[in-house]
Amino acid sequence: MASQEQFHSDPRPIGVFDSGLGGLTVVRELTEIMPAEDVVYLGDSARVPYGIKSLQTVRQFALEDMSFLLGFDPKMIVVACNSATAAAYEQLVAASPVDVVDVIRPGAAAAVAATDGVIGVIGTEATVKSGAYQREIARLAPGREVMAQACPLLVPIVEEGRDQDDPIVLNVLCDYLRAMQRRRCGAMILGCTHYPLLAGAIGKLMGPDVKLVSSAAAAAREARRRLQAAGLDNPSGRGTLRCYVTDNAERFAVLGERFGGRKIDHVQFVGTDELESRRIGAQ
Amino acid sequence: MASQEQFHSDPRPIGVFDSGLGGLTVVRELTEIMPAEDVVYLGDSARVPYGIKSLQTVRQFALEDMSFLLGFDPKMIVVACNSATAAAYEQLVAASPVDVVDVIRPGAAAAVAATDGVIGVIGTEATVKSGAYQREIARLAPGREVMAQACPLLVPIVEEGRDQDDPIVLNVLCDYLRAMQRRRCGAMILGCTHYPLLAGAIGKLMGPDVKLVSSAAAAAREARRRLQAAGLDNPSGRGTLRCYVTDNAERFAVLGERFGGRKIDHVQFVGTDELESRRIGAQ
Repeated sequence: MASQEQFHSDPRPIGVFDSGLGGLTVVRELTEIMPAEDVVYLGDSARVPYGIKSLQTVRQFALEDMSFLLGFDPKMIVVACNSATAAAYEQLVAASPVDVVDVIRPGAAAAVAATDGVIGVIGTEATVKSGAYQREIARLAPGREVMAQACPLLVPIVEEGRDQDDPIVLNVLCDYLRAMQRRRCGAMILGCTHYPLLAGAIGKLMGPDVKLVSSAAAAAREARRRLQAAGLDNPSGRGTLRCYVTDNAERFAVLGERFGGRKIDHVQFVGTDELESRRIGAQ
Repeated sequence: MASQEQFHSDPRPIGVFDSGLGGLTVVRELTEIMPAEDVVYLGDSARVPYGIKSLQTVRQFALEDMSFLLGFDPKMIVVACNSATAAAYEQLVAASPVDVVDVIRPGAAAAVAATDGVIGVIGTEATVKSGAYQREIARLAPGREVMAQACPLLVPIVEEGRDQDDPIVLNVLCDYLRAMQRRRCGAMILGCTHYPLLAGAIGKLMGPDVKLVSSAAAAAREARRRLQAAGLDNPSGRGTLRCYVTDNAERFAVLGERFGGRKIDHVQFVGTDELESRRIGAQ
């Protein structure tokens, strides 16, 4: 068995990117179920947040991010950002020589599996406006009722480092979730990789009957499934995490621990001008 | 008199930039006191906000922004962004062939003139951390007590379009202003060009004895003073406003009206890659 595993194992890293810190919640889930995999992470903290920007601009940024990661010869790309997925999934798949796992498709599938009732989706303005979750749920479960709510303040609130029991956090959540509380959703998708850090408060407000679906956890499970199916997993790796950011490496190292659930040792700066020069199709 | 004015008048536009929409509050003040001046505005909405990013990154962005505006042969540059001023004022002045008016120096001077008591400053994380207001007030009024508070959620709250009497807005303001309410400031500087849109609520919370100083209004007055002193004002211009944004021209046109107090007719997209290629000193 051991030798067969080694025969299949692929030591190349998994490339993960996000607009900033949020994607580390996906890394945390990846690490929990595949602790030996090496990960290279890019957080585009100079241009964060993506969720308030146009799909066209986010698409450009996402292609630049992936292009940078492809320089590390990864075996898989994980788009750990709902806004980037909503804006650019098809373009990323078309431009990548390796498999691309997103957060929206696995999140939608997990929600459909979790309930026969109404599905709530909370996310950034870009994600909700794109209709990507709505379309994917309609494809998987035609006719299923979906309620989607953009929550622009949640990312800045999480980035500010407020606790889940902070009255401001609870007030803002109450404001956004009011309509969904009334409609009695069966499941609610945390459609932004920042939101797992507010899962406790969201769960309390929605009540025990509403199943919370983390798009981060669903994406990590999908990544494992596909790596194993293709014989590309690496159970004997060292489980290293190398991080690159386009701004403020120190802040990333400090806050990143809270998002990633582990100490972030290796954070290196890379300029957005370097990302732009590596853009796929750039001259 | 008329002929003398015409002799002095300089028809070149004033170049104004900000990370996004906030700087339009400066344009509004400029237009109110110099209605005939033409203005070219750049909002770097693809990389907004600046206030949560490192001074080094904001400096790079600010130099690129100014460089773009210099292409319009302006007679003056107004840095309508406290974070950009905090990060890059000296570098902008050094790199500009024309006069550069910022928001921090005029705001600090107006506050010192408004009170002999404690001066409160609210701003973004970058502005407050830079210590730029604190240093400028110490220069103008050595020994004066200054209380500075970073308010990271206020920009996203204003950009979300919430009204000043929204309970969330009041809750968040209460949270940030608590210490300053206790300390009884004589004046408070609205050290971010987004904050004039919350002036009503801030005024109510701080009470009638605290003078609110808008850095936007102070900067506009300083711009007029310097233009007139140099004989560069243009009382017979048409008062046009041309806007350029690095993302989402439509959103800018809609929200901009609220910030600028006038209809925004001309908004044009310019990519960040074009800004980067024009960077001063870039090859």
